[in-house]
Amino acid sequence: MFNSIGVIGLGVMGSNIALNMASKGEQVAVYNYTRDLTDQLVAKLDGQSLHPYYEIQDFVQSLEAPRKIFLMVTAGKAIDSVITSLLPHLESGDIIMDGGNSHYVDTERRYDELKPKGISYLGVGVSGGEVGALKGPSIMPGGDKDAYEKVAPILTKIAAKVNEEPCCTYIGPKGSGHFVKMVHNGIEYADMQLIAEAYTFLRERLHLEVNEIADIFETWNQGELKSYLIEITAEILRKKDEVTGLPLIDVILDKAGQKGTGKWTSMQAIDNGIPASIITEALFARYISALKEERMNAENILTGPENVGQELDKNEWIDYIRQALYMGKVCAYAQGFTQYKMSSELYGWDLPLKDIALIFRGGCIIRAEFLNVISEAYQEQPNLANLLISPYFAEKVTDYQAGLRKVVCEGIISGISFPCLSSSLNFYDSYRKGISNANILQAQRDYFGAHTYERRDLAGVFHTDWQ
Amino acid sequence: MFNSIGVIGLGVMGSNIALNMASKGEQVAVYNYTRDLTDQLVAKLDGQSLHPYYEIQDFVQSLEAPRKIFLMVTAGKAIDSVITSLLPHLESGDIIMDGGNSHYVDTERRYDELKPKGISYLGVGVSGGEVGALKGPSIMPGGDKDAYEKVAPILTKIAAKVNEEPCCTYIGPKGSGHFVKMVHNGIEYADMQLIAEAYTFLRERLHLEVNEIADIFETWNQGELKSYLIEITAEILRKKDEVTGLPLIDVILDKAGQKGTGKWTSMQAIDNGIPASIITEALFARYISALKEERMNAENILTGPENVGQELDKNEWIDYIRQALYMGKVCAYAQGFTQYKMSSELYGWDLPLKDIALIFRGGCIIRAEFLNVISEAYQEQPNLANLLISPYFAEKVTDYQAGLRKVVCEGIISGISFPCLSSSLNFYDSYRKGISNANILQAQRDYFGAHTYERRDLAGVFHTDWQ
Repeated sequence: MFNSIGVIGLGVMGSNIALNMASKGEQVAVYNYTRDLTDQLVAKLDGQSLHPYYEIQDFVQSLEAPRKIFLMVTAGKAIDSVITSLLPHLESGDIIMDGGNSHYVDTERRYDELKPKGISYLGVGVSGGEVGALKGPSIMPGGDKDAYEKVAPILTKIAAKVNEEPCCTYIGPKGSGHFVKMVHNGIEYADMQLIAEAYTFLRERLHLEVNEIADIFETWNQGELKSYLIEITAEILRKKDEVTGLPLIDVILDKAGQKGTGKWTSMQAIDNGIPASIITEALFARYISALKEERMNAENILTGPENVGQELDKNEWIDYIRQALYMGKVCAYAQGFTQYKMSSELYGWDLPLKDIALIFRGGCIIRAEFLNVISEAYQEQPNLANLLISPYFAEKVTDYQAGLRKVVCEGIISGISFPCLSSSLNFYDSYRKGISNANILQAQRDYFGAHTYERRDLAGVFHTDWQ
Repeated sequence: MFNSIGVIGLGVMGSNIALNMASKGEQVAVYNYTRDLTDQLVAKLDGQSLHPYYEIQDFVQSLEAPRKIFLMVTAGKAIDSVITSLLPHLESGDIIMDGGNSHYVDTERRYDELKPKGISYLGVGVSGGEVGALKGPSIMPGGDKDAYEKVAPILTKIAAKVNEEPCCTYIGPKGSGHFVKMVHNGIEYADMQLIAEAYTFLRERLHLEVNEIADIFETWNQGELKSYLIEITAEILRKKDEVTGLPLIDVILDKAGQKGTGKWTSMQAIDNGIPASIITEALFARYISALKEERMNAENILTGPENVGQELDKNEWIDYIRQALYMGKVCAYAQGFTQYKMSSELYGWDLPLKDIALIFRGGCIIRAEFLNVISEAYQEQPNLANLLISPYFAEKVTDYQAGLRKVVCEGIISGISFPCLSSSLNFYDSYRKGISNANILQAQRDYFGAHTYERRDLAGVFHTDWQ
């Protein structure tokens, strides 16, 4: 009997994807380029339909045609190397899926290389971490639609479900699936940083205990802020350190790492004229956090504000922070979805924004209650210029802006840095102004560089002899 | 008689550079790949030492050995094409200088391609716009030092002078000259946006007339804010539109363009873990300005704050704005110079930060009085981690932060967007904190992705089973 699918790369993510497939009744061939991980996985088998292979040729030959091969290999050269070793054994019509965090540009290159060989290449964004991979991730497949349709039965089966609907939908051509995953991760960076900023206000400005803050996050998680990241933050704050007895959060070093997709999101936005300030500020916040030694030194030299502000009413301000966090999230997701929209137009991808919001509701790290409303906004207006102007969110931000303004202002007065809350508000206040101050920039550019300018009242391009 | 130098590319910048060289006594061969620009320049000759050539072979053969050829050609493929056409006529030891805004990575590629052929390639950053090119720009040459020394007599002669010192110094190997120019332009973006934000506060919040604002900028230009960009902004604000009689600034369309170097600065920073939030926010402000039609539409849907705040004391607040602008500039230059420092370490360039500040004092767009102090800071501490912690600037920002906090807060309350002033303040408040909130991010990353974390109190790498 042939296997219905093969998985290459048996780290935690790949093993869990394979176990997930097997648990859904697939006959799964598994292969890893070193034997140890295969053996580890096989030891867990417990009668499941996982079939280990130790030679790539045997692995490939065990698969029913057209062969469906799912790679969960570290992004970069390892992918190219696996493809090279697979190629001699494949036939026209076979399908390779890359489920890792590959850069969408690499995916497009591989797609183009494999197309003439008759091999279909799908860039498959997978979000959900280890647990998601095992129990149901959010899946964003991009490539040729007919190839997707051949693997859709398996992918939809292993995906997370929300109201019985699988969190997996065809995204679009070529690298678009990995692109959507990339920006998903950028949004994730912003969301995490916004939560960290809300936490900081509660801790440093309202002087609440870690446990009280966990209570607040739990409460928030029962309302419109309901989301995986809020939920796990509450759990994180409950955790005690076994060594010191302190809240574990208080012993964790404050130097944040990153693994690529967030920075790629910012770079793609910047390269293409797309405003992505909130995601980018989240990234810079991580970079500044990494300068730990410099910051420790600067603390002895640079001072904060003289007066740290008066006592604040706890309950009143907790609700301001809730509003600020919600509005910050709306602005961050609005930028992320604008990045989808503008890139979709740029690359001719026709991304299904409504469906992207739907598949983000389950399995993935940024799953959140309000993705339902985001999806509805795009269902009502598929060409919506920006989420902020959809009726639902326009009303929300009209209500919540007062909270966001108060929190950011109080942060400024108290010397607390709020890079993402600030840039959310700045984005909002720029975007809602028909007239900006860029006329100053255009005049300066024309003055020193003869770059010319347009006028508000007359058509054409103008240059002034300013001196 | 042989010519001492040749210039290829006779647009405004190239023509002016050639005229500048001729005015300093050089015998300058000039060539353009279409005849018209050469003829136009020759018509201006008026007895100067410019010698037109219409065949590239004749142009090259007219030069004394080792030949010194200065390209002022649009960045990109045109440069490669000019080099290809030059190559058959060159000899080992000849020197090509690229004076355009080439990406430093392209410069490094060209350097590597020409090196085995015995041709020295210098990436020469040139700032100063048209006028600077003619009367004395700031010049940032990078490449082999021995090649630089052969062209140094000419480059230092045509450079701007400050206290008799030429604004031209050897920057470092390979693409470092163009890199320094690139980040210079990024700083320029931030500086321009900060000025635009100060203008907005004066105009929209203090309700001053354009002429009054011009007065204020003129006054500022006599103090520590003294700089080219402040000076030209005052002049810009004086200019009346001939069509309408209005201040010209009021009829200029508020959609800002950009030409690459600013975005390259942000992308290089992001790619390499360098905090460059202020430059990047300036870039995003331009991108948002470009969404003019969306903004016009959003203005009808999204509202600002309900109460626009009370009447402000004019003179008091003009000084707060001055402080805010100065501190914003310090933070922006601090980030730019950090980008030099971190990139210099990354690429092994050994960039002379003290000298870079010195050559920025004249000729270039960001020339400013306070570059003297920046240079002194690096003279005193060549390995200074950040400009903010140098004694001079640490004292300044201690004094001025109150003004910056007030202005940003008042902007928030009034619904005015201050992306660069805000990000300056956020950067300041992050950088001066020994302990950040990145522990939250690390805990989240470990929770959902098993990314592990470090501890404050124990060495090693840890992972928690959070659930």
